[in-house]
Amino acid sequence: MAGAMGACVGGLPISVLTDSYKATHYLQYPKAQKMVCYGEFRAGYNKDKVDTRIVSYGLRYFIEQYVSKRWTLEDVERADAFYRTHMAPAYSAFPFPKALFEKFVRENDGYFPVKVEGCITAEDDYAPMCTFLETLLTMIWYPTTVATLSRRARDIVEATFARSSDQGKASPLMSSRLQDFGFRGCTSVEQSILGGTAHLLSFTGSDTMSAAYFAQALSKVLPAISGKKVGKGGYLVLRPDSGDPTEAVLMALEAAEKVFGCTTNTRGFKVINGCGVIQGDGINIQSMEKITLAVEQAGFAADNVTYGMGGGLLQKVNRDTMSFATKLNHVVYADGTAIDIMKQPLTDPSKYSLPGVLAVKRVNGVPTVFPADSGEVSAEDNLLKVVYDRGPVAGFTWDDFDTVKSRLRSEWEVTPLRADNLSPSLQAKIVEQTRLRGSKVIDG
Amino acid sequence: MAGAMGACVGGLPISVLTDSYKATHYLQYPKAQKMVCYGEFRAGYNKDKVDTRIVSYGLRYFIEQYVSKRWTLEDVERADAFYRTHMAPAYSAFPFPKALFEKFVRENDGYFPVKVEGCITAEDDYAPMCTFLETLLTMIWYPTTVATLSRRARDIVEATFARSSDQGKASPLMSSRLQDFGFRGCTSVEQSILGGTAHLLSFTGSDTMSAAYFAQALSKVLPAISGKKVGKGGYLVLRPDSGDPTEAVLMALEAAEKVFGCTTNTRGFKVINGCGVIQGDGINIQSMEKITLAVEQAGFAADNVTYGMGGGLLQKVNRDTMSFATKLNHVVYADGTAIDIMKQPLTDPSKYSLPGVLAVKRVNGVPTVFPADSGEVSAEDNLLKVVYDRGPVAGFTWDDFDTVKSRLRSEWEVTPLRADNLSPSLQAKIVEQTRLRGSKVIDG
Repeated sequence: MAGAMGACVGGLPISVLTDSYKATHYLQYPKAQKMVCYGEFRAGYNKDKVDTRIVSYGLRYFIEQYVSKRWTLEDVERADAFYRTHMAPAYSAFPFPKALFEKFVRENDGYFPVKVEGCITAEDDYAPMCTFLETLLTMIWYPTTVATLSRRARDIVEATFARSSDQGKASPLMSSRLQDFGFRGCTSVEQSILGGTAHLLSFTGSDTMSAAYFAQALSKVLPAISGKKVGKGGYLVLRPDSGDPTEAVLMALEAAEKVFGCTTNTRGFKVINGCGVIQGDGINIQSMEKITLAVEQAGFAADNVTYGMGGGLLQKVNRDTMSFATKLNHVVYADGTAIDIMKQPLTDPSKYSLPGVLAVKRVNGVPTVFPADSGEVSAEDNLLKVVYDRGPVAGFTWDDFDTVKSRLRSEWEVTPLRADNLSPSLQAKIVEQTRLRGSKVIDG
Repeated sequence: MAGAMGACVGGLPISVLTDSYKATHYLQYPKAQKMVCYGEFRAGYNKDKVDTRIVSYGLRYFIEQYVSKRWTLEDVERADAFYRTHMAPAYSAFPFPKALFEKFVRENDGYFPVKVEGCITAEDDYAPMCTFLETLLTMIWYPTTVATLSRRARDIVEATFARSSDQGKASPLMSSRLQDFGFRGCTSVEQSILGGTAHLLSFTGSDTMSAAYFAQALSKVLPAISGKKVGKGGYLVLRPDSGDPTEAVLMALEAAEKVFGCTTNTRGFKVINGCGVIQGDGINIQSMEKITLAVEQAGFAADNVTYGMGGGLLQKVNRDTMSFATKLNHVVYADGTAIDIMKQPLTDPSKYSLPGVLAVKRVNGVPTVFPADSGEVSAEDNLLKVVYDRGPVAGFTWDDFDTVKSRLRSEWEVTPLRADNLSPSLQAKIVEQTRLRGSKVIDG
């Protein structure tokens, strides 16, 4: 994530950045030397089965702003006091692993004692703290979902430019075609940063000047305004009133055509002179696609229309949109016995989680998941980089925002829409686990 | 909002806490001595026309954490540098009212120069900054929507307790019947604070220990666990597996009944001994109501079931859920002419905004909106308190969380589900504005 707008929610001890029941896991888990959990999106955007690509985004923010902070003994005392007052209905006092927190403050320089690399690993005395950060890290569902939605919106824009604009997808207008109007529809300032930057991976410019002020009494106001703005070498953007978004855009284009006139481009589509339309009401992926087709049908080039998406972009998504969940996948018990863990609900066996420690390697362009213990993925090839290891990782630096943007631009197009991304060795492990289930299945 | 978990997104200048087009309003607005805007929920939860009550909540957070901060000249320089790089598609440089920011830093002790009391008022040179904070303050849609949803969920719980529990609505179990499972489904930590505390207005306890770990292989594990917990004087909470939530609850109740046995209460409903069920999957307002009825139908008292709501409580809401919007409502032009402004979209005249400066007074239990200039509402009666006036307000203190909770408890029940809350004088003004529209209607 871009460093320029670094932000965090201050004053909150890391101990409260979890579901309270997570704090009790240390009482529930078996004695173990090591525990590993991982997170996974089980579906493409809105459960799409044709295009299942996702844009993974946002881990940096949560690691830098929350996980990679040093704790003090005072913080532990504060946390302990908090948990003493946080009474679950079934307990008279709420358990909190105070001794483990004190231990890592004293022995690990104050850093939370887990390793994060896609999987979260905790070892030795700290093993039961494995899932403590699960709640917080699960929140990457949000920036990842918005980044994916926004990139898919860009696919729609690219398609209409390819069909109707002089320079096709190479048009310099492309990147400003979807403006983020979502700030006021966010639940919080922090959300607007996470979602807003996720959108900026695929489009330049968040939010835009609006001509809403002039939207009513449309054609009477137009000429005067246009004279003023165009006289300065400007460009007038019309924002239609609310109503059916497709009709609103077509009406505005036709009104603008009458006032400003059009030029026909090399593909035979009309481009209005010095004026365009921005539609900011009722925009989501579906309505955007519908409008692009209607605009072309009416003979207008993609150049004439910009979209603004508000709640549809930043708020009307949830953890189910791409089915994100975090699950325990590996335990080494106190006696050294290692087991891989796979959740497979009785009521829906198809909702299994992936067993064992995982590694990811690109195979024929597809990021493919392997068992880490299969020896098939070298440390260099493993796309799951260690981003935190009981503290900041020496020598590791996050890619800057432009690098992430470029990577998205190059990788999105070459990644197949849909692919089997489980390696044969992992598939074999899943089959074996399914056969063994009943004795080893643990619901993490 | 409770002070204990005070939090803010640090490092962000107030100048970026707005839609960027708001920063350009000072160029678009007419010269004025005074401008006023206001925010309004146009609908009850999920557009309910039977019960339109809302729980207003969250303004304190945004005022304390963002608005009521002192700016420095360095902040203005940073903001100016930011805006110089923030280019809207139609402009080559982005306008930012730097001189006005410098002015209030020098002349108003660094405090943003508006008054907030439900309406936002800006005067004199600062008049064009009236809507600058609109984006940020619009975010109260979120805590208010969650607070309303949660209170309505309590209505459902109260109804089932009244029908099937010994003590009815007076049962001490009531307040813990809906647990907040929504943290991981939030988009950000800040959201979890805003939404999580909104829930705590109507229920005690956010999140709970979960018995999910033991959910599969249910009846075999039960006796051993129950012996252990009940032996300590505890209470076992079963969390069913995923699947249809109503069926899952009924199956778990029947399994628990076999293991633990039941006692029949004074209303003839069964209460399981030392064991209950928590359903945390698939819970929203609708499924909660359905489950309460099915549980009673099966002969079980409300005492046996607790609910956990996750995304349904904290994330599956948006600004449209209760149709929140902010609109300009009053301008005094440079020449002293004062006009009331009412938005009334051409495409949907029923979506008018309220014209003129407003005051709110309780009439027959209903908070009723008056024109502030009608003389019908004294300063003491006005429910719109001044919470910020070009700086913190001398002598004003926010009610603490418990006071807000008690007020909600007492006022919710006596507030009619639905009422005409526009005073006759305001209705007359709306009629007059509608007649005059065309010349004075401005889209804010």
